[in-house]
Amino acid sequence: MLDITASDRLAVKNFATKTPVFVCVISYTATSEISGLTVAGANAELMKYTSPADAEFLYHGRCSCIKVVPATPDGKPTPALITRTALQLARIPLLVVDAGAKVKPSIPYISFGVEPGRNIINENAMDISSVKRAFEHGELLGKQLAIMSDLIVVGESIPGGTTTALAVLRAIGIDARFKVSSSMPENPHNLKNKVVDSAIERVTADRIERISSPFEAISTFGDPMMPSVAGIASGVLSASGKVMLAGGTQMSAVVAILKLLGRSLNGLYIGTTTYVTKDPSSDLSGLVRMASKRVPILSCDLHLGESSKPGLQAFAKGFVKEGVGAGGASIVAITKSRGKITGKKLMNAIEKEYEISIESMPH
Amino acid sequence: MLDITASDRLAVKNFATKTPVFVCVISYTATSEISGLTVAGANAELMKYTSPADAEFLYHGRCSCIKVVPATPDGKPTPALITRTALQLARIPLLVVDAGAKVKPSIPYISFGVEPGRNIINENAMDISSVKRAFEHGELLGKQLAIMSDLIVVGESIPGGTTTALAVLRAIGIDARFKVSSSMPENPHNLKNKVVDSAIERVTADRIERISSPFEAISTFGDPMMPSVAGIASGVLSASGKVMLAGGTQMSAVVAILKLLGRSLNGLYIGTTTYVTKDPSSDLSGLVRMASKRVPILSCDLHLGESSKPGLQAFAKGFVKEGVGAGGASIVAITKSRGKITGKKLMNAIEKEYEISIESMPH
Repeated sequence: MLDITASDRLAVKNFATKTPVFVCVISYTATSEISGLTVAGANAELMKYTSPADAEFLYHGRCSCIKVVPATPDGKPTPALITRTALQLARIPLLVVDAGAKVKPSIPYISFGVEPGRNIINENAMDISSVKRAFEHGELLGKQLAIMSDLIVVGESIPGGTTTALAVLRAIGIDARFKVSSSMPENPHNLKNKVVDSAIERVTADRIERISSPFEAISTFGDPMMPSVAGIASGVLSASGKVMLAGGTQMSAVVAILKLLGRSLNGLYIGTTTYVTKDPSSDLSGLVRMASKRVPILSCDLHLGESSKPGLQAFAKGFVKEGVGAGGASIVAITKSRGKITGKKLMNAIEKEYEISIESMPH
Repeated sequence: MLDITASDRLAVKNFATKTPVFVCVISYTATSEISGLTVAGANAELMKYTSPADAEFLYHGRCSCIKVVPATPDGKPTPALITRTALQLARIPLLVVDAGAKVKPSIPYISFGVEPGRNIINENAMDISSVKRAFEHGELLGKQLAIMSDLIVVGESIPGGTTTALAVLRAIGIDARFKVSSSMPENPHNLKNKVVDSAIERVTADRIERISSPFEAISTFGDPMMPSVAGIASGVLSASGKVMLAGGTQMSAVVAILKLLGRSLNGLYIGTTTYVTKDPSSDLSGLVRMASKRVPILSCDLHLGESSKPGLQAFAKGFVKEGVGAGGASIVAITKSRGKITGKKLMNAIEKEYEISIESMPH
């Protein structure tokens, strides 16, 4: 278990799961179209395909809505590669939730009936009724999943999601500036701060001070992923189940929302990669602590720096880092297997998946 | 276990489940709009709300898309009442699949991306590509569910479904005339036969003889429920899981499709009520035997004839009889509880649900 470390020693010692279920929440925010904000898509035109293509990749090992596997403009592959490998290796069942993806994937997906998020610079991200619907649908699903499984792992795929996370955190009084993560080694903090400043200026200073409801914060500054994931988590926790939020700094916004809603956070974990927890340009543990002191962070060393594949080495060099629940899925694969799957074994399997799905593809 | 009987003694003896999952597939065929064919909806205008309202009722005990609980024109309530009670009593998790419902329910539902079925008198029910998509999405979902659960119970809600079942069975060479069930005590066999005759006349006699593919039969004469349920079952069975098709004579068409596709039917069951198996106006066991000799039928005595509620007594008098997986859900509730839940206990709980959701409602 040395491949997994935790912010709280007891948390990792007591962490166990036999019947995990992985839920991938795909979503969209038009905020991602702002140039330079994210590389989760080869270009702005392709951005809307990133999350449905990720979901298709998890099921099939290839995509239908686009011809290639999602990648950064310079060809770093989607972390869905890691997630798929971990789920397959440990036989972890997969469900996909569509929380406002702009393009729908060609797989069975659970609809929460919400629209894509709008660009927070120009207008409110979502109607408040949509925020509530997403949360309520999440709770309904979470309660059912809690009966089936001893741990619900919730990953996300939404390009531009750290900027909306920053905006929501700031709106509810958590100064997340220079703390959110990025899919790039050069974290564009200044651009993200400028975008969020503009969004805040759009709403009058007077009104900002009145944002005490987390639903209003999401409606004004967030994205559809947040209430959906928070709802699933809330549903599972209310049924005394366990939830792992599988992702980076975006998930600190979800923790903050749950805390503000007065939900008990017993049984809530964050699971991610060491590429996030050790990232010098962001501060996941600081953000989570500001939201709640009781939520342990587990992180997984994927040994990708030791890989022979340049596209995978990149993850250890500050590219991509996390996404599509890659870190959480890896932690849960290792845990479910009771150590039979190690970080090294996982890396070898990821390399094979890389050979099949990336190297064998026409360019 | 005396409340459960089976076509095959060994089948009921060996039948066990600890971690069942119930899947309700909601769908639509415009064939149901033919006057006199079904009473699964108070009138033709309300028919499209029946299946989404059933799904909403399973989650909430009330409906959102219509103000009242689905019922026949003379007020017999939907069998979703029974299903909901059984699922709640035995803590069986629920998932809803939308396979072409005309109105979408206000709950999280799994989309298979298919359109409502067309009226088979006028035109083909579905494009062949839709049939394939529904089946493939079903298989993908079924494979994931088989990892989570030792028994997938699949119920359906589609008004008019016995007529499309009759048509598909005839197209693939099973003479189901006078054998399909009905939601009415006076089974309108002659009308159903006439509708199917018209549908067959629509396609030339020459072409009919060429229908050897079950997908083509569904495309020409079926409805979107069939490939969706068959796909889920196929996915579960291919992963060596167990599936119960929870429904009446419509499910014999699903068995026939799976058989024609060459799927192994090991682990496949039909679960229904004794109101179907003892119905003198239809012949479920005959239909299933013609499709495959290896699929056992389990049926549940719900003791509704002993109920003090006229709306529930009606089920024992040939009204409604089955639907929304009521019989299968009851069997699985009894089995999962290892007999702690009996048919009598279930009836009492159904009466309470009836009081809450039907009697307390404004008329």
